[in-house]
Amino acid sequence: MQLGLIGLGKMGFNMRERLRGGGHEVIGYDPRPEVSDVPSLAALAEQLEAPRVVWVMVPSGEITRETIEDLAGVLSSGDLVIDGGNSRYTEDGIHAKMLVDKGIGFIDAGVSGGVWGLTEGYGLMIGGSDDDVARVMPIFETLRPEGDLADGFVHAGPVGAGHFAKMVHNGVEYALMTAYGEGYEMLAAEPLIKSPQAVYQAWSNGTVVRSWLQQLLAKALKEDPQLADISGYTEDSGEGRWTVEEAIRLRVPVPGIAASLFARFLSRQEDSPTMKAVAALRNQFGGHAVQRVSKSG
Amino acid sequence: MQLGLIGLGKMGFNMRERLRGGGHEVIGYDPRPEVSDVPSLAALAEQLEAPRVVWVMVPSGEITRETIEDLAGVLSSGDLVIDGGNSRYTEDGIHAKMLVDKGIGFIDAGVSGGVWGLTEGYGLMIGGSDDDVARVMPIFETLRPEGDLADGFVHAGPVGAGHFAKMVHNGVEYALMTAYGEGYEMLAAEPLIKSPQAVYQAWSNGTVVRSWLQQLLAKALKEDPQLADISGYTEDSGEGRWTVEEAIRLRVPVPGIAASLFARFLSRQEDSPTMKAVAALRNQFGGHAVQRVSKSG
Amino acid sequence: MQLGLIGLGKMGFNMRERLRGGGHEVIGYDPRPEVSDVPSLAALAEQLEAPRVVWVMVPSGEITRETIEDLAGVLSSGDLVIDGGNSRYTEDGIHAKMLVDKGIGFIDAGVSGGVWGLTEGYGLMIGGSDDDVARVMPIFETLRPEGDLADGFVHAGPVGAGHFAKMVHNGVEYALMTAYGEGYEMLAAEPLIKSPQAVYQAWSNGTVVRSWLQQLLAKALKEDPQLADISGYTEDSGEGRWTVEEAIRLRVPVPGIAASLFARFLSRQEDSPTMKAVAALRNQFGGHAVQRVSKSG
Amino acid sequence: MQLGLIGLGKMGFNMRERLRGGGHEVIGYDPRPEVSDVPSLAALAEQLEAPRVVWVMVPSGEITRETIEDLAGVLSSGDLVIDGGNSRYTEDGIHAKMLVDKGIGFIDAGVSGGVWGLTEGYGLMIGGSDDDVARVMPIFETLRPEGDLADGFVHAGPVGAGHFAKMVHNGVEYALMTAYGEGYEMLAAEPLIKSPQAVYQAWSNGTVVRSWLQQLLAKALKEDPQLADISGYTEDSGEGRWTVEEAIRLRVPVPGIAASLFARFLSRQEDSPTMKAVAALRNQFGGHAVQRVSKSG
Repeated sequence: MQLGLIGLGKMGFNMRERLRGGGHEVIGYDPRPEVSDVPSLAALAEQLEAPRVVWVMVPSGEITRETIEDLAGVLSSGDLVIDGGNSRYTEDGIHAKMLVDKGIGFIDAGVSGGVWGLTEGYGLMIGGSDDDVARVMPIFETLRPEGDLADGFVHAGPVGAGHFAKMVHNGVEYALMTAYGEGYEMLAAEPLIKSPQAVYQAWSNGTVVRSWLQQLLAKALKEDPQLADISGYTEDSGEGRWTVEEAIRLRVPVPGIAASLFARFLSRQEDSPTMKAVAALRNQFGGHAVQRVSKSG
Repeated sequence: MQLGLIGLGKMGFNMRERLRGGGHEVIGYDPRPEVSDVPSLAALAEQLEAPRVVWVMVPSGEITRETIEDLAGVLSSGDLVIDGGNSRYTEDGIHAKMLVDKGIGFIDAGVSGGVWGLTEGYGLMIGGSDDDVARVMPIFETLRPEGDLADGFVHAGPVGAGHFAKMVHNGVEYALMTAYGEGYEMLAAEPLIKSPQAVYQAWSNGTVVRSWLQQLLAKALKEDPQLADISGYTEDSGEGRWTVEEAIRLRVPVPGIAASLFARFLSRQEDSPTMKAVAALRNQFGGHAVQRVSKSG
Repeated sequence: MQLGLIGLGKMGFNMRERLRGGGHEVIGYDPRPEVSDVPSLAALAEQLEAPRVVWVMVPSGEITRETIEDLAGVLSSGDLVIDGGNSRYTEDGIHAKMLVDKGIGFIDAGVSGGVWGLTEGYGLMIGGSDDDVARVMPIFETLRPEGDLADGFVHAGPVGAGHFAKMVHNGVEYALMTAYGEGYEMLAAEPLIKSPQAVYQAWSNGTVVRSWLQQLLAKALKEDPQLADISGYTEDSGEGRWTVEEAIRLRVPVPGIAASLFARFLSRQEDSPTMKAVAALRNQFGGHAVQRVSKSG
Repeated sequence: MQLGLIGLGKMGFNMRERLRGGGHEVIGYDPRPEVSDVPSLAALAEQLEAPRVVWVMVPSGEITRETIEDLAGVLSSGDLVIDGGNSRYTEDGIHAKMLVDKGIGFIDAGVSGGVWGLTEGYGLMIGGSDDDVARVMPIFETLRPEGDLADGFVHAGPVGAGHFAKMVHNGVEYALMTAYGEGYEMLAAEPLIKSPQAVYQAWSNGTVVRSWLQQLLAKALKEDPQLADISGYTEDSGEGRWTVEEAIRLRVPVPGIAASLFARFLSRQEDSPTMKAVAALRNQFGGHAVQRVSKSG
């Protein structure tokens, strides 16, 4: 089928490729003319036959908001917009409302898979009405991985459900990565273990902890057994923070996910103000030897 | 090759089956005559041709200790004992020493895979000398899963390294399960999500969080979508506790694994003494409404 | 000085008492006629001499919002409103703006001390302009505890700073209570310890952990040494949740405060969905004995 | 009464001073002749009238063990040894047994108060038999703070109970310090707050969080408002690690104390191996920008 695709960055570019490979006609728009198929949003709208389906794949936040606003201006009743970026699910209702007055439909799509999606397919978590989802199904069929539909695609619920499921996916991902990280650190700290890499590699088959992330860590350790070239400084992209915030709203205890989020915050601090306060306290009451800043390298 | 196998419980029984299927001659001993091939340890030793290889697959702790002691009595110089149970790795050195005076070798083998191992093979993490490991290799080859050797087998280091790697494996497993549990709880708490099961199922392909445990949870939720028949009361089998203890010894911060362990402790408490103290405090300073025990059902 | 006081619940009632004891003229309003000095907000405004100072001491959220709206209607330019309730600090800017158009000033006051404040005084954390704070100083002087001003009163910053400081105060309070709770649980679990109460009592002088909360817990344990009459079911009143949310906004790792908040969530669950998922997983892969719901009574 | 005191370091030196001020005859021994009253342990034993009471105040671990061994050599039946250092409570039974064969009694004493103890008195947590404790009571009376006996002294139970109570005291102390540290970090991160120091100071009276540690942090912040001269690098002295280990043995969930312990481990790492693994994983699956070591300063 025909699809407009806005945003041809790392993800959107690959998705256009995969969709074209699947026989769809994709017209992509991006502000960078070297990758864009059309010079403007207006041109995109013009070139698509009504009723149009437009997939938005741009950074979450302001850029997504503005893009949806702009689309509300150039699209017409009967058209359909899909937000496939990492928007917070609370944005979806707002975006849907911005479009519904014009008679334009809205779907939120959580898309997982990163750079591997081009060849392996993307895990899809979708929110929207049954009719809207049915309409985009040919696109979803091409984007998703091979195998049973239910193993790589879910129509999770009404508008918002797709991004909510994707947010939880990423929150779980944070905690999984921390779990594997802690395991690595223990193996690396114990002199009995000849090669943490070999242990991680050996977990690939038959074990309870086998997973895609486990295999990726084995691969990363093969390339750099001491992780000597990698700093622990780690950004967080929003979903982890949102997951903990939504957990608080839902009164769901998430010690594992929260610990993972806080570990990322800590990784970006030169020195921890909390621990400076702890050190200052020890200094006050105990005459404990406190490391002075000048000595701490 | 020929192997003595002590302990024909859930794990040992299946391993005998898989090994025999692989062409090995396995003589099993178990105190329950209905599953045992020989009437006693002494008979087992007698029936095996020297130099003997004996695999011990009994519960960790006292029973393993006593079995090794008994084996020191009936085996001879040149024989080899493998502890394939979930012994704490700190036991391995002690057990090796109990045997070395008699000229008997020792290997510790961490075995993962549970009831699935019979058909899929067992993930193996081995500690011991190069010569001893080479000698048992035909057995390991049959037990391990199909595919590359390095993907399901590791000679992790000297005596102790196998059980250490298995202990870390189980600690990581605790944290992974908690991560998936937290994700499930959030999906179940959010009304937008039609079916947490369907979301977990859809994570099977293409996503970052796909894993064996993820698929098992999808399967469990298919059988019982609300987990209505399952209590959260959860035992811990030792490795989780040991992992945190060893992390403390190694000064490795393991907030994720520790949170998972504490969650299991909590799951077995009728009411949390910590929270009773917190409630008592609130009652003291705030006249906060405190739920009396009689009301809390 | 003259003060209007809205809300004569547990806190407001005591504050009126303490302020009158300090020589101030307090006109209290409460919807319950048996405690109210005036029949309505309008009557309150009428009875106060302009420029008026009105202290709002009502539950945070909608009731505070509506009260401020109502006050915007009955007060005049030059008047001053103080929100002494537990409003989220992000509300303060909104409330200030609702009043500033009418020329009415706004102060946010975090008030600590609970039922003990009547006799011991209230810890005060204030946000607002220097002029507004100076104007209310006689009231603050009476409410605050005896001793140095700086030991029980802080003008923490502009509008919002008072409630922010109070929110952090409560977040810290959560973590302190959990710390003492964990200590109590350990003492109660160890057979060597004759009386956890006696240990807590003995921490009152000379120790590093001595505090008001420590003494309150000693007192609570004296009244009920096993805490047998108290359920661990514990509400959270908002500030704990807000503290973690603001920590996330500020990228401040707060594992201690978050653990305390999650412990409260857990205390209110009949059974933990997270742990049900963990138990279901163990059931799937290990044939671990899983406690069925019917048995967990 | 007469007391032998072994170890005249920071703690022992001050205790001798306080005890002499209380009218006791203290004969101190220390390997450093400039502070010692006698040249050797043997001389100490000789100079004390039988039956002797000897207080050991040396670093926990090997030095305490050796000192007790030496005392078993020079003391006689009817004498009494008190271990006032920070020994792990599991050592106490061993030490008592080393002495009991000679007819020498043993008491374990947890002593809190640090450098402030000289003037304010020491919080005391005692383990031992009723008779032994009664015998040393005059010494305890002088060491303990003024006020009610029960507020600064507890005979917590039989041998081991004193050090167990002190260990829990220190575990709680870890979590309290982290709580105040997290509160400080939040106040310091929020631009609305003019002075975190002033807020901490204002918590001294009337608030729920007031405590000795709170006042010490206010004092530390007064001396160095940004804690600019203090590194967050923080040692742990054993009790925190032991508390978590004992909590695991007792199946007591201690997320607050464990988080505090792990924060100390983290404070001493140049870079977190766990987070290096997390960063490596993100690099693998997402093409996320990973900070290379060379860039991370």
